[in-house]
Amino acid sequence: MKLHQSNLSPNSRRVRVFLAEKGLDIPYVDVDLSKGESHTPDYLNMNPMGEVPMLETDDGCYITESVAICRYFEALQPEPHLFGVTPIEMATIEMWQRRIELKWFGPLTQFWGHTSPRFAHRHGQIPEWAEQNAQAVGEFVTWLDSELSGREYIAGESFSIADILALATFDHGNATVGLKTSPALKNLVRWHQMVSRRPSARA
Amino acid sequence: MKLHQSNLSPNSRRVRVFLAEKGLDIPYVDVDLSKGESHTPDYLNMNPMGEVPMLETDDGCYITESVAICRYFEALQPEPHLFGVTPIEMATIEMWQRRIELKWFGPLTQFWGHTSPRFAHRHGQIPEWAEQNAQAVGEFVTWLDSELSGREYIAGESFSIADILALATFDHGNATVGLKTSPALKNLVRWHQMVSRRPSARA
Repeated sequence: MKLHQSNLSPNSRRVRVFLAEKGLDIPYVDVDLSKGESHTPDYLNMNPMGEVPMLETDDGCYITESVAICRYFEALQPEPHLFGVTPIEMATIEMWQRRIELKWFGPLTQFWGHTSPRFAHRHGQIPEWAEQNAQAVGEFVTWLDSELSGREYIAGESFSIADILALATFDHGNATVGLKTSPALKNLVRWHQMVSRRPSARA
Repeated sequence: MKLHQSNLSPNSRRVRVFLAEKGLDIPYVDVDLSKGESHTPDYLNMNPMGEVPMLETDDGCYITESVAICRYFEALQPEPHLFGVTPIEMATIEMWQRRIELKWFGPLTQFWGHTSPRFAHRHGQIPEWAEQNAQAVGEFVTWLDSELSGREYIAGESFSIADILALATFDHGNATVGLKTSPALKNLVRWHQMVSRRPSARA
Protein backbone atom coordinates (compact mmCIF):
# COMPACT_ATOMS: atom_id res chain seq x y z
CA MET A 1 0.00 0.00 0.00
CA LYS A 2 1.26 3.49 -0.79
CA LEU A 3 -0.03 7.04 -0.82
CA HIS A 4 0.58 9.19 -3.88
CA GLN A 5 0.71 12.72 -2.50
CA SER A 6 2.25 16.17 -2.71
CA ASN A 7 3.55 18.48 -0.01
CA LEU A 8 2.00 21.38 -1.98
CA SER A 9 -1.51 19.89 -1.81
CA PRO A 10 -3.77 20.79 1.14
CA ASN A 11 -5.85 17.67 0.45
CA SER A 12 -2.73 15.52 0.71
CA ARG A 13 -1.98 17.18 4.03
CA ARG A 14 -5.38 16.13 5.36
CA VAL A 15 -4.39 12.49 4.84
CA ARG A 16 -0.88 12.96 6.23
CA VAL A 17 -2.26 14.52 9.43
CA PHE A 18 -4.92 11.81 9.68
CA LEU A 19 -2.31 9.05 9.38
CA ALA A 20 -0.13 10.77 11.99
CA GLU A 21 -3.09 10.90 14.41
CA LYS A 22 -3.65 7.18 13.83
CA GLY A 23 0.04 6.41 14.25
CA LEU A 24 0.09 4.75 10.84
CA ASP A 25 3.19 4.78 8.68
CA ILE A 26 2.28 4.40 4.99
CA PRO A 27 4.95 4.85 2.30
CA TYR A 28 4.55 8.01 0.23
CA VAL A 29 5.09 8.48 -3.47
CA ASP A 30 5.74 12.18 -3.95
CA VAL A 31 4.00 13.54 -7.04
CA ASP A 32 5.64 16.70 -8.38
CA LEU A 33 2.67 18.79 -9.45
CA SER A 34 4.91 21.53 -10.87
CA LYS A 35 6.35 19.01 -13.32
CA GLY A 36 2.90 17.73 -14.31
CA GLU A 37 3.46 14.33 -12.71
CA SER A 38 -0.25 14.05 -11.86
CA HIS A 39 -1.11 14.22 -15.56
CA THR A 40 1.24 11.70 -17.11
CA PRO A 41 -0.44 8.83 -19.02
CA ASP A 42 0.58 6.41 -16.25
CA TYR A 43 -0.93 8.57 -13.51
CA LEU A 44 -4.14 9.26 -15.44
CA ASN A 45 -4.48 5.54 -15.98
CA MET A 46 -4.61 5.12 -12.20
CA ASN A 47 -6.67 8.28 -11.57
CA PRO A 48 -8.42 9.86 -14.57
CA MET A 49 -9.06 12.99 -12.45
CA GLY A 50 -5.31 13.66 -12.30
CA GLU A 51 -5.46 14.57 -8.63
CA VAL A 52 -3.60 13.88 -5.42
CA PRO A 53 -3.88 12.33 -2.90
CA MET A 54 -4.48 8.81 -4.19
CA LEU A 55 -4.15 5.59 -2.24
CA GLU A 56 -2.88 2.53 -4.09
CA THR A 57 -3.80 -0.63 -2.20
CA ASP A 58 -1.87 -3.90 -2.28
CA ASP A 59 -4.55 -5.55 -4.40
CA GLY A 60 -4.44 -2.81 -7.03
CA CYS A 61 -7.33 -0.57 -6.04
CA TYR A 62 -6.97 3.19 -6.42
CA ILE A 63 -8.87 5.31 -3.93
CA THR A 64 -8.97 9.05 -4.51
CA GLU A 65 -10.65 11.83 -2.54
CA SER A 66 -8.90 12.66 0.72
CA VAL A 67 -11.87 11.99 3.00
CA ALA A 68 -12.55 8.62 1.35
CA ILE A 69 -8.91 7.66 2.00
CA CYS A 70 -9.24 8.74 5.64
CA ARG A 71 -12.49 6.77 5.96
CA TYR A 72 -10.64 3.68 4.69
CA PHE A 73 -8.03 3.96 7.43
CA GLU A 74 -10.72 4.64 10.05
CA ALA A 75 -12.37 1.35 9.05
CA LEU A 76 -9.05 -0.54 9.05
CA GLN A 77 -7.95 0.87 12.40
CA PRO A 78 -10.77 2.54 14.33
CA GLU A 79 -8.65 3.85 17.24
CA PRO A 80 -8.33 6.72 17.92
CA HIS A 81 -11.76 7.44 16.45
CA LEU A 82 -11.68 10.53 14.23
CA PHE A 83 -15.14 10.17 12.61
CA GLY A 84 -17.05 9.67 15.88
CA VAL A 85 -18.47 6.60 17.61
CA THR A 86 -22.16 7.12 18.43
CA PRO A 87 -24.68 7.94 15.66
CA ILE A 88 -25.10 11.54 16.81
CA GLU A 89 -21.31 12.04 17.05
CA MET A 90 -20.81 10.61 13.58
CA ALA A 91 -23.53 12.84 12.15
CA THR A 92 -22.28 15.96 13.92
CA ILE A 93 -18.71 15.42 12.75
CA GLU A 94 -19.87 14.80 9.18
CA MET A 95 -22.02 17.94 9.29
CA TRP A 96 -19.02 20.02 10.31
CA GLN A 97 -16.69 18.30 7.90
CA ARG A 98 -19.04 19.26 5.10
CA ARG A 99 -19.50 22.82 6.33
CA ILE A 100 -15.72 23.26 6.43
CA GLU A 101 -15.38 21.88 2.92
CA LEU A 102 -18.38 23.48 1.21
CA LYS A 103 -18.41 26.87 2.96
CA TRP A 104 -14.72 27.47 3.59
CA PHE A 105 -12.33 25.26 1.63
CA GLY A 106 -14.48 25.39 -1.51
CA PRO A 107 -14.72 29.20 -1.71
CA LEU A 108 -11.05 29.50 -0.72
CA THR A 109 -10.10 27.22 -3.60
CA GLN A 110 -12.30 29.18 -5.99
CA PHE A 111 -10.65 32.42 -4.92
CA TRP A 112 -7.22 30.90 -5.46
CA GLY A 113 -8.12 29.41 -8.82
CA HIS A 114 -9.41 32.75 -10.07
CA THR A 115 -6.57 34.94 -8.78
CA SER A 116 -3.33 32.94 -8.83
CA PRO A 117 -1.17 33.12 -11.97
CA ARG A 118 -0.50 29.40 -11.65
CA PHE A 119 -4.06 28.59 -12.77
CA ALA A 120 -4.34 31.24 -15.50
CA HIS A 121 -3.66 28.70 -18.26
CA ARG A 122 -6.45 26.34 -17.16
CA HIS A 123 -9.57 28.48 -17.52
CA GLY A 124 -10.64 32.09 -17.82
CA GLN A 125 -10.12 33.77 -14.47
CA ILE A 126 -13.06 35.88 -13.32
CA PRO A 127 -12.20 38.65 -10.83
CA GLU A 128 -15.84 39.18 -9.83
CA TRP A 129 -16.19 35.47 -8.98
CA ALA A 130 -12.97 35.61 -6.94
CA GLU A 131 -14.37 38.57 -5.03
CA GLN A 132 -17.66 36.80 -4.25
CA ASN A 133 -15.67 33.89 -2.84
CA ALA A 134 -13.41 36.08 -0.72
CA GLN A 135 -16.57 37.50 0.80
CA ALA A 136 -18.02 34.02 1.39
CA VAL A 137 -14.84 32.94 3.17
CA GLY A 138 -14.96 36.04 5.36
CA GLU A 139 -18.58 35.41 6.33
CA PHE A 140 -17.94 31.76 7.12
CA VAL A 141 -14.88 32.27 9.32
CA THR A 142 -16.68 35.03 11.22
CA TRP A 143 -19.53 32.63 11.96
CA LEU A 144 -17.12 29.79 12.79
CA ASP A 145 -15.34 32.08 15.24
CA SER A 146 -18.62 32.74 17.06
CA GLU A 147 -19.38 28.99 17.13
CA LEU A 148 -15.96 28.29 18.68
CA SER A 149 -16.71 30.58 21.60
CA GLY A 150 -18.70 27.70 23.08
CA ARG A 151 -16.51 24.66 22.58
CA GLU A 152 -12.95 23.40 22.16
CA TYR A 153 -12.99 21.72 18.78
CA ILE A 154 -14.80 22.21 15.48
CA ALA A 155 -17.39 19.46 16.01
CA GLY A 156 -17.56 19.32 19.80
CA GLU A 157 -15.29 18.50 22.72
CA SER A 158 -13.06 16.02 20.88
CA PHE A 159 -10.55 16.35 18.06
CA SER A 160 -11.96 14.89 14.82
CA ILE A 161 -11.50 14.84 11.07
CA ALA A 162 -13.40 18.15 10.99
CA ASP A 163 -10.44 19.74 12.84
CA ILE A 164 -8.01 18.21 10.33
CA LEU A 165 -9.94 19.69 7.41
CA ALA A 166 -10.17 23.05 9.13
CA LEU A 167 -6.45 23.06 9.98
CA ALA A 168 -5.45 22.29 6.40
CA THR A 169 -7.83 24.99 5.15
CA PHE A 170 -6.67 27.61 7.64
CA ASP A 171 -2.99 27.08 6.83
CA HIS A 172 -3.59 26.88 3.08
CA GLY A 173 -5.49 30.17 3.18
CA ASN A 174 -2.82 31.95 5.17
CA ALA A 175 0.35 30.48 3.69
CA THR A 176 -0.55 30.00 0.04
CA VAL A 177 -3.81 31.63 -1.05
CA GLY A 178 -3.21 34.96 0.63
CA LEU A 179 -6.59 35.20 2.39
CA LYS A 180 -5.23 35.74 5.87
CA THR A 181 -7.26 35.14 9.01
CA SER A 182 -7.98 38.31 10.94
CA PRO A 183 -6.45 38.29 14.46
CA ALA A 184 -9.80 39.72 15.60
CA LEU A 185 -11.24 36.21 15.24
CA LYS A 186 -9.91 35.27 18.65
CA ASN A 187 -11.71 31.95 19.07
CA LEU A 188 -10.59 30.72 15.69
CA VAL A 189 -7.02 31.82 16.36
CA ARG A 190 -7.10 30.11 19.79
CA TRP A 191 -8.38 26.91 18.18
CA HIS A 192 -5.67 27.11 15.49
CA GLN A 193 -2.90 27.53 18.04
CA MET A 194 -4.23 24.56 20.00
CA VAL A 195 -4.46 22.12 17.09
CA SER A 196 -1.15 23.34 15.65
CA ARG A 197 0.59 22.16 18.82
CA ARG A 198 -0.40 18.55 18.14
CA PRO A 199 2.51 16.54 16.72
CA SER A 200 0.33 15.53 13.75
CA ALA A 201 0.18 19.16 12.57
CA ARG A 202 3.75 18.87 11.34
CA ALA A 203 2.79 16.09 8.91
CA MET B 1 -37.64 13.14 15.58
CA LYS B 2 -38.64 15.03 12.45
CA LEU B 3 -37.13 16.06 9.15
CA HIS B 4 -37.46 19.66 8.02
CA GLN B 5 -37.44 19.43 4.24
CA SER B 6 -38.74 20.78 0.96
CA ASN B 7 -40.00 18.99 -2.13
CA LEU B 8 -38.20 21.65 -4.21
CA SER B 9 -34.81 20.83 -2.70
CA PRO B 10 -32.64 18.16 -4.34
CA ASN B 11 -30.73 17.74 -1.08
CA SER B 12 -33.98 17.03 0.75
CA ARG B 13 -34.77 14.42 -1.89
CA ARG B 14 -31.50 12.64 -1.15
CA VAL B 15 -32.70 12.08 2.42
CA ARG B 16 -36.23 11.11 1.40
CA VAL B 17 -34.90 8.47 -1.01
CA PHE B 18 -32.42 7.24 1.61
CA LEU B 19 -35.20 6.84 4.20
CA ALA B 20 -37.37 5.01 1.66
CA GLU B 21 -34.53 2.58 0.93
CA LYS B 22 -34.18 1.95 4.67
CA GLY B 23 -37.93 1.55 5.09
CA LEU B 24 -37.93 4.30 7.73
CA ASP B 25 -40.92 6.56 8.23
CA ILE B 26 -39.87 9.86 9.76
CA PRO B 27 -42.38 12.74 10.05
CA TYR B 28 -41.68 15.64 7.69
CA VAL B 29 -42.03 19.34 8.36
CA ASP B 30 -42.43 20.96 4.96
CA VAL B 31 -40.46 24.20 4.70
CA ASP B 32 -41.85 26.54 2.05
CA LEU B 33 -38.70 28.01 0.52
CA SER B 34 -40.70 30.34 -1.76
CA LYS B 35 -42.19 31.99 1.35
CA GLY B 36 -38.78 32.32 3.02
CA GLU B 37 -39.62 29.80 5.73
CA SER B 38 -35.97 28.66 5.90
CA HIS B 39 -34.95 32.18 6.92
CA THR B 40 -37.38 33.04 9.70
CA PRO B 41 -35.79 33.87 13.09
CA ASP B 42 -37.09 30.54 14.50
CA TYR B 43 -35.57 28.53 11.67
CA LEU B 44 -32.24 30.38 11.75
CA ASN B 45 -32.10 29.72 15.47
CA MET B 46 -32.16 25.99 14.69
CA ASN B 47 -29.96 26.25 11.60
CA PRO B 48 -27.98 29.47 11.09
CA MET B 49 -27.25 28.36 7.50
CA GLY B 50 -30.95 28.65 6.64
CA GLU B 51 -30.89 25.44 4.65
CA VAL B 52 -32.94 22.29 4.24
CA PRO B 53 -32.87 19.41 4.95
CA MET B 54 -32.43 19.54 8.71
CA LEU B 55 -33.05 16.71 11.16
CA GLU B 56 -34.41 17.62 14.57
CA THR B 57 -33.78 14.81 17.04
CA ASP B 58 -35.91 13.98 20.08
CA ASP B 59 -33.25 15.35 22.42
CA GLY B 60 -33.06 18.69 20.66
CA CYS B 61 -30.10 18.24 18.33
CA TYR B 62 -30.20 19.78 14.87
CA ILE B 63 -28.30 17.94 12.16
CA THR B 64 -27.92 19.64 8.80
CA GLU B 65 -26.16 18.49 5.61
CA SER B 66 -28.00 15.76 3.75
CA VAL B 67 -25.19 13.20 3.81
CA ALA B 68 -24.66 13.71 7.56
CA ILE B 69 -28.36 13.02 8.10
CA CYS B 70 -28.13 9.87 5.97
CA ARG B 71 -25.03 8.76 7.89
CA TYR B 72 -27.00 9.14 11.13
CA PHE B 73 -29.71 6.78 9.90
CA GLU B 74 -27.10 4.35 8.56
CA ALA B 75 -25.63 4.18 12.08
CA LEU B 76 -29.06 3.80 13.73
CA GLN B 77 -30.22 1.12 11.31
CA PRO B 78 -27.38 -0.38 9.24
CA GLU B 79 -29.54 -2.63 7.02
CA PRO B 80 -29.73 -2.35 4.08
CA HIS B 81 -26.19 -0.94 3.98
CA LEU B 82 -25.97 2.11 1.73
CA PHE B 83 -22.47 3.32 2.74
CA GLY B 84 -20.75 -0.06 2.28
CA VAL B 85 -19.60 -2.73 4.72
CA THR B 86 -15.93 -3.57 4.15
CA PRO B 87 -13.25 -0.85 4.34
CA ILE B 88 -12.67 -0.87 0.58
CA GLU B 89 -16.43 -0.70 -0.14
CA MET B 90 -16.85 2.19 2.28
CA ALA B 91 -13.93 4.06 0.71
CA THR B 92 -15.07 3.41 -2.86
CA ILE B 93 -18.60 4.58 -2.14
CA GLU B 94 -17.32 7.70 -0.41
CA MET B 95 -14.98 8.42 -3.33
CA TRP B 96 -17.90 8.27 -5.77
CA GLN B 97 -20.22 10.18 -3.48
CA ARG B 98 -17.69 13.00 -3.43
CA ARG B 99 -17.06 12.88 -7.17
CA ILE B 100 -20.81 13.16 -7.79
CA GLU B 101 -21.06 16.07 -5.42
CA LEU B 102 -17.91 18.01 -6.27
CA LYS B 103 -17.74 17.38 -10.02
CA TRP B 104 -21.42 17.20 -10.95
CA PHE B 105 -23.85 18.53 -8.37
CA GLY B 106 -21.54 21.41 -7.41
CA PRO B 107 -21.06 22.75 -10.97
CA LEU B 108 -24.76 22.14 -11.73
CA THR B 109 -25.69 24.24 -8.71
CA GLN B 110 -23.27 26.97 -9.75
CA PHE B 111 -24.75 27.04 -13.24
CA TRP B 112 -28.25 27.30 -11.77
CA GLY B 113 -27.28 29.98 -9.28
CA HIS B 114 -25.73 32.10 -12.01
CA THR B 115 -28.50 31.71 -14.61
CA SER B 116 -31.85 31.36 -12.83
CA PRO B 117 -33.83 34.55 -12.13
CA ARG B 118 -34.73 33.16 -8.72
CA PHE B 119 -31.18 33.73 -7.47
CA ALA B 120 -30.63 37.13 -9.11
CA HIS B 121 -31.33 39.01 -5.89
CA ARG B 122 -28.74 37.07 -3.86
CA HIS B 123 -25.51 37.90 -5.66
CA GLY B 124 -24.20 39.21 -8.94
CA GLN B 125 -24.77 36.54 -11.59
CA ILE B 126 -21.77 35.91 -13.81
CA PRO B 127 -22.56 34.45 -17.26
CA GLU B 128 -18.93 33.44 -17.89
CA TRP B 129 -18.86 31.47 -14.63
CA ALA B 130 -22.16 29.78 -15.52
CA GLU B 131 -20.66 28.77 -18.86
CA GLN B 132 -17.52 27.29 -17.26
CA ASN B 133 -19.76 25.19 -15.03
CA ALA B 134 -21.97 23.98 -17.87
CA GLN B 135 -18.80 22.79 -19.55
CA ALA B 136 -17.59 21.08 -16.35
CA VAL B 137 -20.93 19.26 -16.02
CA GLY B 138 -20.71 18.10 -19.63
CA GLU B 139 -17.18 16.76 -19.16
CA PHE B 140 -18.09 14.94 -15.98
CA VAL B 141 -21.21 13.19 -17.27
CA THR B 142 -19.33 12.12 -20.41
CA TRP B 143 -16.68 10.50 -18.22
CA LEU B 144 -19.28 9.01 -15.89
CA ASP B 145 -21.03 7.49 -18.90
CA SER B 146 -17.80 5.77 -19.93
CA GLU B 147 -17.29 4.50 -16.37
CA LEU B 148 -20.80 3.03 -16.32
CA SER B 149 -20.04 0.89 -19.36
CA GLY B 150 -18.31 -1.51 -17.00
CA ARG B 151 -20.67 -1.82 -14.05
CA GLU B 152 -24.27 -1.59 -12.89
CA TYR B 153 -24.18 1.11 -10.25
CA ILE B 154 -22.20 4.29 -9.61
CA ALA B 155 -19.81 2.79 -7.06
CA GLY B 156 -19.83 -0.88 -8.08
CA GLU B 157 -22.27 -3.75 -8.31
CA SER B 158 -24.56 -2.63 -5.48
CA PHE B 159 -26.92 0.30 -5.03
CA SER B 160 -25.46 2.86 -2.59
CA ILE B 161 -25.74 6.43 -1.41
CA ALA B 162 -23.64 7.39 -4.43
CA ASP B 163 -26.58 6.31 -6.64
CA ILE B 164 -28.98 8.37 -4.54
CA LEU B 165 -26.84 11.48 -4.94
CA ALA B 166 -26.47 10.87 -8.67
CA LEU B 167 -30.22 10.29 -9.11
CA ALA B 168 -31.10 13.52 -7.31
CA THR B 169 -28.50 15.38 -9.39
CA PHE B 170 -29.62 13.88 -12.71
CA ASP B 171 -33.28 14.72 -12.11
CA HIS B 172 -32.53 18.18 -10.74
CA GLY B 173 -30.42 18.98 -13.81
CA ASN B 174 -33.07 17.80 -16.24
CA ALA B 175 -36.25 18.95 -14.54
CA THR B 176 -35.21 22.22 -12.93
CA VAL B 177 -31.82 23.55 -13.96
CA GLY B 178 -32.25 23.00 -17.68
CA LEU B 179 -28.96 21.20 -18.30
CA LYS B 180 -30.44 18.14 -19.92
CA THR B 181 -28.61 14.84 -20.25
CA SER B 182 -27.78 13.93 -23.82
CA PRO B 183 -29.47 10.69 -24.95
CA ALA B 184 -26.09 9.82 -26.52
CA LEU B 185 -24.85 9.00 -22.98
CA LYS B 186 -26.38 5.55 -23.24
CA ASN B 187 -24.83 4.03 -20.12
CA LEU B 188 -25.86 6.95 -17.95
CA VAL B 189 -29.40 6.87 -19.38
CA ARG B 190 -29.58 3.09 -18.81
CA TRP B 191 -28.43 3.55 -15.22
CA HIS B 192 -30.98 6.33 -14.68
CA GLN B 193 -33.84 4.21 -15.99
CA MET B 194 -32.79 1.35 -13.72
CA VAL B 195 -32.58 3.36 -10.49
CA SER B 196 -35.74 5.31 -11.36
CA ARG B 197 -37.69 2.04 -11.30
CA ARG B 198 -36.90 1.54 -7.61
CA PRO B 199 -39.87 2.46 -5.39
CA SER B 200 -37.62 4.83 -3.42
CA ALA B 201 -37.19 7.03 -6.51
CA ARG B 202 -40.72 8.36 -6.01
CA ALA B 203 -39.83 9.74 -2.57
